[in-house]
Amino acid sequence: MLLKVLELVGVVAFAASGSLVAVSKRLDIFGVCLIGLFTAIGGGVIRDVLLGITPPTALNTWKFFTTAVLTSLVVFFLHATVRRLRREILVFDAVGMGLFASSGAAIALEAGTSGQAACLIGATTAIGGGVLRDVLVNEMPLLLHRDLYAIPALIGSTVVVACSNLGLTTDVGLVAGTVLAAVIRLLALWRDWNLPGPRLLQD
Amino acid sequence: MLLKVLELVGVVAFAASGSLVAVSKRLDIFGVCLIGLFTAIGGGVIRDVLLGITPPTALNTWKFFTTAVLTSLVVFFLHATVRRLRREILVFDAVGMGLFASSGAAIALEAGTSGQAACLIGATTAIGGGVLRDVLVNEMPLLLHRDLYAIPALIGSTVVVACSNLGLTTDVGLVAGTVLAAVIRLLALWRDWNLPGPRLLQD
Amino acid sequence: MLLKVLELVGVVAFAASGSLVAVSKRLDIFGVCLIGLFTAIGGGVIRDVLLGITPPTALNTWKFFTTAVLTSLVVFFLHATVRRLRREILVFDAVGMGLFASSGAAIALEAGTSGQAACLIGATTAIGGGVLRDVLVNEMPLLLHRDLYAIPALIGSTVVVACSNLGLTTDVGLVAGTVLAAVIRLLALWRDWNLPGPRLLQD
Repeated sequence: MLLKVLELVGVVAFAASGSLVAVSKRLDIFGVCLIGLFTAIGGGVIRDVLLGITPPTALNTWKFFTTAVLTSLVVFFLHATVRRLRREILVFDAVGMGLFASSGAAIALEAGTSGQAACLIGATTAIGGGVLRDVLVNEMPLLLHRDLYAIPALIGSTVVVACSNLGLTTDVGLVAGTVLAAVIRLLALWRDWNLPGPRLLQD
Repeated sequence: MLLKVLELVGVVAFAASGSLVAVSKRLDIFGVCLIGLFTAIGGGVIRDVLLGITPPTALNTWKFFTTAVLTSLVVFFLHATVRRLRREILVFDAVGMGLFASSGAAIALEAGTSGQAACLIGATTAIGGGVLRDVLVNEMPLLLHRDLYAIPALIGSTVVVACSNLGLTTDVGLVAGTVLAAVIRLLALWRDWNLPGPRLLQD
Repeated sequence: MLLKVLELVGVVAFAASGSLVAVSKRLDIFGVCLIGLFTAIGGGVIRDVLLGITPPTALNTWKFFTTAVLTSLVVFFLHATVRRLRREILVFDAVGMGLFASSGAAIALEAGTSGQAACLIGATTAIGGGVLRDVLVNEMPLLLHRDLYAIPALIGSTVVVACSNLGLTTDVGLVAGTVLAAVIRLLALWRDWNLPGPRLLQD
């Protein structure tokens, strides 16, 4: 139950981050909704395609679609207000990222993949929407050059696989993975952690 | 039969729109053919991947591939002439868009998806090629910021799903969806309809 | 056995080409590894998705993932040295391209596709990683406008299909396709072959 609520919180946060970017690119109302939708459900659609779950769950049910589009509409009409909630959105986004990474890994394991595939597909679930968002608005994906985002996602999905290998229940793995990923992400934001670039090391 | 012809008309129009963009980017003959091909069959390939139809129909048969490549070659060698047919291409493109949206929705329903998934996958079939085209030539997708394109596609696929829910035959849905989508698209072009951007509403 | 070794050589070369581009874009250590990984395994993942092989082989086994990430790390720390090996990397890359095109076509035929689909999916396997690389770093794909890359790949996969139609063993097709594709690619680099652009023909 908590997980279902968190999942929708994640969709809201992802849709908000996507539609805010779209607004700042001055897209029209449809473009804003489309980018919000892609950001929110893109990762899950890619996960399902990689696992052979067709049609992807996020397309086959109303819940995610409706939540993402409504969120994008709110952002479109009230973007100045929403922008003031930037910090709150980042917190929700971190929780959503952790949850998508963990649940992505759990769904992959359930589909019978190897542990490695579950780690990678879980992380892909968490980062896929943001990468799609950036590619569509013609920017280099943020997580490639500025954001410590994929590492926490990979840690979250790895925790789920480790818990499963230790014989713990899926729920324990989901909670542990989500919390750890979100905390690391928030610490990285708060302390402004960055990974070293090639500049610092050689040249 | 009429649908088969219209389908090829759509492929020709999509390939022409893609290869014209590629020519204007000064790509070589292979790049022009590749962009023409991606624009023409990209939407159908994405549709089939989302539905688990592998290998995608458009890759598995000669018809679409050959039509798209031949069209692109004609555009490559005669692009100045083809460019003068811009208005005609836009009309064919609108028909193709309507048909791809409608047939995409019908194929999704046949594959057993929910009505919502059929609406979304139908629209994706119609817009997928154009989005791929723009991403590959490193432009922000036109339909995100200038073109009223995805809304008519969504209307076309929704008509097919509605007709199916009303118990009408697939053919009725296909014709109604294609005509409605194409007419709305052409009206939008003719009257220069645009959706509001965030600029107009707040700031 | 030789094919297994060549396959890893191809992964190393593709990962090196991807991570060198990422370094030149000043990405951080994670971005460099991610682009290296996408370049190395992206084509194979797309191939498997198009064939309905889920989860994709490259995600489900350690071999490719580990090789690609280790290569990217070496490039990250020693990129000035690696850059001096540019010519050697191009040779390995040509061999990898030929092998991926040929093995992609063979895997497609084994999955029961038509000969045409096998040609197209084989070529997609070879070029997919490089296209992903360029899209992610926000450049127009090199092979669209400067590089004679996809034509040799298409020739390689077509040779495999032709050998199969002639009743020859898969091994013969793989060797012939790989060698022919690599040789044409290297000749194109060495002689600086380019395809004509629209500029030369009309305007």
